[in-house]
Amino acid sequence: MTLLLDFYGELLTEKQREYMELYYSEDFSLAEIAGLGGVTRQGVRDALQRAEAALLEIEAKTGLLQRFSEVSKTAGEIQKTLRIIETRTGAKETAPLFQEIYQSLDTLI
Amino acid sequence: MTLLLDFYGELLTEKQREYMELYYSEDFSLAEIAGLGGVTRQGVRDALQRAEAALLEIEAKTGLLQRFSEVSKTAGEIQKTLRIIETRTGAKETAPLFQEIYQSLDTLI
Repeated sequence: MTLLLDFYGELLTEKQREYMELYYSEDFSLAEIAGLGGVTRQGVRDALQRAEAALLEIEAKTGLLQRFSEVSKTAGEIQKTLRIIETRTGAKETAPLFQEIYQSLDTLI
Repeated sequence: MTLLLDFYGELLTEKQREYMELYYSEDFSLAEIAGLGGVTRQGVRDALQRAEAALLEIEAKTGLLQRFSEVSKTAGEIQKTLRIIETRTGAKETAPLFQEIYQSLDTLI
């Protein structure tokens, strides 16, 4: 849910996003959020459920989180294969180039 | 607009998506779409404008197309650096491993 919120949180209403961030990112309880917002605990629970359903529906329709998780997986596999290549060839002069690629791959993982 | 449609098209209404696909992917004219849909040319134009605005707003809020285009750019740079490494080390036994990485990178570009 935190990943979905990172991806699509801005597509929620302001209140939904606020509750979701307090609940999932900052570990507030339903009662604490209710206290801050001047609403009932049940009101917070309903808003969270609607927000969760909205995020899941967006992912079901677009599949973009899934696409990104495949990018991450592919980058991890490339990194492993590259380490094998580096171990086998192991020339000192290419070490900075390998390093450059590892760093680039890290931004994709 | 075609990229935005690929990313977020499923978040549009069915009619908006249909018009957008006819106009941008299949190169229909406004008049042709109007003829198919039993609406006026202006009606099609309005629907397309609303759909375009919606797609641009989603991208402005989520930035996911931008994130993916950065993945693509990074993968292209990695590929270039890898070709330099391969040229410098050039061992035959590692050629299939390089090939494997090139193919994985292609899926990210």
